[in-house]
Amino acid sequence: MALIAILAGDGIGPEVTTQARRVLDALGLDHQFEDGLVGGAAYRALGHPLPPQTLELAHRADAILFGAVGDPEMDGLERTLRPEQAILGLRKALGLFANLRPATMFPGLEDASALRPEVARSIDMVIVRELTGDVYFGDKGRGHTKMGLREGHDMMRYDEAEVARIARVGFEMAKRRKKILTSVDKANVLETSQLWREIVNEVALDYPEVKLTHMYVDNAAMQLVRNPGAFDVVVTGNLFGDILSDQASMCVGSIGMLPSASLNEWTGTCGLYEPIHGSAPDIAGQGKANPCAAILSAAMLLRHSLSDEASAQRIEAAVIAAIGSGARTPDLGGSHSTTAMGDAVLAAL
Amino acid sequence: MALIAILAGDGIGPEVTTQARRVLDALGLDHQFEDGLVGGAAYRALGHPLPPQTLELAHRADAILFGAVGDPEMDGLERTLRPEQAILGLRKALGLFANLRPATMFPGLEDASALRPEVARSIDMVIVRELTGDVYFGDKGRGHTKMGLREGHDMMRYDEAEVARIARVGFEMAKRRKKILTSVDKANVLETSQLWREIVNEVALDYPEVKLTHMYVDNAAMQLVRNPGAFDVVVTGNLFGDILSDQASMCVGSIGMLPSASLNEWTGTCGLYEPIHGSAPDIAGQGKANPCAAILSAAMLLRHSLSDEASAQRIEAAVIAAIGSGARTPDLGGSHSTTAMGDAVLAAL
Ligand SMILES: CC(C)[C@H](C(=O)O)[C@@H](O)C(=O)O
Ligand SMILES: CC(C)[C@H](C(=O)O)[C@@H](O)C(=O)O
Repeated sequence: MALIAILAGDGIGPEVTTQARRVLDALGLDHQFEDGLVGGAAYRALGHPLPPQTLELAHRADAILFGAVGDPEMDGLERTLRPEQAILGLRKALGLFANLRPATMFPGLEDASALRPEVARSIDMVIVRELTGDVYFGDKGRGHTKMGLREGHDMMRYDEAEVARIARVGFEMAKRRKKILTSVDKANVLETSQLWREIVNEVALDYPEVKLTHMYVDNAAMQLVRNPGAFDVVVTGNLFGDILSDQASMCVGSIGMLPSASLNEWTGTCGLYEPIHGSAPDIAGQGKANPCAAILSAAMLLRHSLSDEASAQRIEAAVIAAIGSGARTPDLGGSHSTTAMGDAVLAAL
Repeated sequence: MALIAILAGDGIGPEVTTQARRVLDALGLDHQFEDGLVGGAAYRALGHPLPPQTLELAHRADAILFGAVGDPEMDGLERTLRPEQAILGLRKALGLFANLRPATMFPGLEDASALRPEVARSIDMVIVRELTGDVYFGDKGRGHTKMGLREGHDMMRYDEAEVARIARVGFEMAKRRKKILTSVDKANVLETSQLWREIVNEVALDYPEVKLTHMYVDNAAMQLVRNPGAFDVVVTGNLFGDILSDQASMCVGSIGMLPSASLNEWTGTCGLYEPIHGSAPDIAGQGKANPCAAILSAAMLLRHSLSDEASAQRIEAAVIAAIGSGARTPDLGGSHSTTAMGDAVLAAL
């Protein structure tokens, strides 16, 4: 019996997580669930976005199903107390260095993409994003220049161990797919990227069967528009991964469909699973949010943390069937409520 | 009589610059031209990508027409000797802090875009990218951690003066257009971005007529796919601007159509004008490159550095007419050579 922590968070987080929980319950598996407060919700109740009891629960759990954090009312708070710190803190505390973000076109949803249907249909990639280093976690601060001007700074940094372990995740993933790995950096400008490229080339020696290409991040952003179908697995740093994975997921049409996994080792048991969409305060509480990304995150949780491939595939097939039956939340051009979409997936299960 | 420096550079740079020069000559204006070596070409001839005589010419000139730099054969060189250092060095030496990158759909080219025609047709924006600060120019280097691991680092940094002057360019530009300014940052993670946002808000007080929105860079990358027509002017830092402007230009279909201007003040006389495409070594020397971006860069040069709006508009109209007459280089799905495309523009002039 595994312990699954449910950290629903802010905005639409609780709404979509509720549907994912219903789907997990319907599978009749013998797992235990425990809820924890996180993000703005935790700050309101306990004065901190990642309170000690939530961190303790996260450490104790076998896997975490995460909703979303972010609350515009808290924009004025100092950075360390803002909701986003909860997810950054969890990633760091649990060593969740590998973020897997699949972006695949769902049959029937081609119309939701701004890309031409024939371009959209070709998308089938995974972005492997490093999640505990880079300019996200380097020395940062505010100060004044010698002339007395206000300044702000953040150190971008990687060491060889950090690059090698995420590169390995990328190669392993590529090995199991089409054997094409694109490593994205900005080595013509950044020393961090030159180290990145050097180490990726070293790790590549262990994977002769994988075709490795290096691409500058500006070019990658272009190719993701021009010909996204050419990508198989993309491996990149925290900041570039943040940007490119959101771009890639929008190519698929709706970010309401896409899950993600954050792992602390290649087949580690501890992982955090979250929809790639955020807390979407503009539609929170209206029952409009698409729960599919959260439901598919639950499937990834079963696959990666609980080694339950069969249940993962059952959930994924149910989501595809629900979409196939015409169920559509507003982001997909339909009028299903969050609960009705959950119902459609449950019916297909 | 103004002095225009021509720095053609590497790869397709000389090919496209030749056509731009033909168009400038055809206008019969009373300007002087002087060629200089830059990039890999300069390294081969003189041992440095930005030799002193080229820098001297750049300082002396009223404006610079730049081709492209970059040469895969020089990937092994240390960073300070690589072709890209030429353009980075010129920007810094001339204080070219404001990079203007228009992205507009050309009538007749909707088919070249991977976006649906109705989405592509709506694109009409300018990206204002800061060009002399950020992680591009902060302290950078390679070293070892305490544990003896190789590491690489680059400091991201801005001060209030750097942010304020580029913000002003963005507001001024928006004031002359649809009065919508989107400032892009990553203020939920980066201190540099928090300073950025604070200063942009301060400058906004001087522009009550402009509607300012702040957007996180990951969201901006999504919105540029979902609904690029919603953007008017985007202002952002050097790194985010590098990524987003290339993404935006690919939305337009071909990066072979898009020019850019790098200015050292809002209506400064000294400016550098370059196509946003690079040296494209894969098609260099084959007469396949699209010269339109270089020709349109010459138009921007006349407008911004030589205050010759009439000639700028003549060139722009000629390019639109050439496209309208069906002239298409291979990147646009046609078979015109670089020279034939130049001929078509000249014929339309
Ligand atoms: C909320 C934010 C800190 C986070 C990030 O930038 O990593 C989010 O955009 C994501 O991609 O999960
Ligand atoms: C060549 C490179 C250094 C340059 C940059 O990153 O600024 C290029 O990508 C550009 O956008 O002009």
